[in-house]
Amino acid sequence: MTPVTFLSLGPGDPELLTIKALKTLKDADVVMVPATRNREGVMKSRATDIISEWHLENRLMVYELPMLEDRQAVSLVYDRIFADCVRLFEEGRRVVVAVEGDVSIYASIHYVMERLEEASIPVVQSAGIPSFIAAAASAGLSLVSQQQRLTIMPGDADAETLHRLLSSNHVVVVMKLSQCQEAVKDFLRQNPQTTCHYFENVGTPEAYHTSLSDEILSRQFPYFSLCIIYPA
Amino acid sequence: MTPVTFLSLGPGDPELLTIKALKTLKDADVVMVPATRNREGVMKSRATDIISEWHLENRLMVYELPMLEDRQAVSLVYDRIFADCVRLFEEGRRVVVAVEGDVSIYASIHYVMERLEEASIPVVQSAGIPSFIAAAASAGLSLVSQQQRLTIMPGDADAETLHRLLSSNHVVVVMKLSQCQEAVKDFLRQNPQTTCHYFENVGTPEAYHTSLSDEILSRQFPYFSLCIIYPA
Repeated sequence: MTPVTFLSLGPGDPELLTIKALKTLKDADVVMVPATRNREGVMKSRATDIISEWHLENRLMVYELPMLEDRQAVSLVYDRIFADCVRLFEEGRRVVVAVEGDVSIYASIHYVMERLEEASIPVVQSAGIPSFIAAAASAGLSLVSQQQRLTIMPGDADAETLHRLLSSNHVVVVMKLSQCQEAVKDFLRQNPQTTCHYFENVGTPEAYHTSLSDEILSRQFPYFSLCIIYPA
Repeated sequence: MTPVTFLSLGPGDPELLTIKALKTLKDADVVMVPATRNREGVMKSRATDIISEWHLENRLMVYELPMLEDRQAVSLVYDRIFADCVRLFEEGRRVVVAVEGDVSIYASIHYVMERLEEASIPVVQSAGIPSFIAAAASAGLSLVSQQQRLTIMPGDADAETLHRLLSSNHVVVVMKLSQCQEAVKDFLRQNPQTTCHYFENVGTPEAYHTSLSDEILSRQFPYFSLCIIYPA
């Protein structure tokens, strides 16, 4: 029987899928993908957009994830994904759970993978391009060189942490940037000499990048945004 | 004219190339790749191995990089790569400079890219799977979740730095692990409860992974090795 594959789709550009990932998607019977309803009630799924480019819509199974911080509601959806994985695996189907970005970087669906392992269902994980790697490539940047260190953090950046890391030669990537918008903007205002590259919607047609402080300060950071801050 | 592309090959498995990278390689007139002579005098090039799987050997241009820390000798090879990029670009050829792993993560060839930009030669950078992402996937690991931070560091890890990062909820990836072999082993001996995943030759047929402390301590870390250490 084929293990359940937790497959990374990369940041958005369908051609940033790996060759291995595309083969796995083509061989799958069922591909589970997350979707979220926006404030206007419209279902959005970057995962579906990526997969549809390869004409594989017919095997999609879309799960609506509740927005924001309702952990209990999310947990119920994960319970359903878990149960469906078990059932489909036992029916002998080739099941893929597709994830935007890379599944090892802040992907809470990893919890379902761990539950399957506990239930003795074989699983495999397929690597993808994380959004911060795609961001660096799109702007022609080196993330780390020589003795620099690279720290990736979720949207809980504060001025003190940024100071501490940057002054000890860490390059800092802040993901989920919309969650700490004011803290990062304050830091940039107080440290005008900082080199900060700001990105929205990396790997999509709406991609936006700037390293101009004024432009960064005037943006309303959307959900899919991140920044790369370099030590002086 | 086609920009000079700095292209990431990923960690070793030819199928971990992105679809975009393979297209770019197929369209190239010249693909520059690094190679290194080992202690026995045999030329080794993981980049060549990856590309050869796709039957593109005929366009390869191999550059021998001196081993170890002879910066001046490396610098002379980079001067030659730079000059060849300029000449081939001006002849209208489609030039690719291929790099193992991802070109934004500790790839000193980025220096050639920056020199080309200064010389007003257009360049683009193509994203690839970094070795630590492939390592996590191969072992079914989540690298970071929730409020954890992820720090990637080169082979200058010491016990104090590891302690400090781990105790402030950083997951730590140590690359170029052979350069700080004793420091990491000492840390593991002194902190036997630590969860450490150790990897050699990720993405190749010689890949090796263990999280057993005794096995890690008994290995002689080779050049292509890294570890992922989790906070308690």
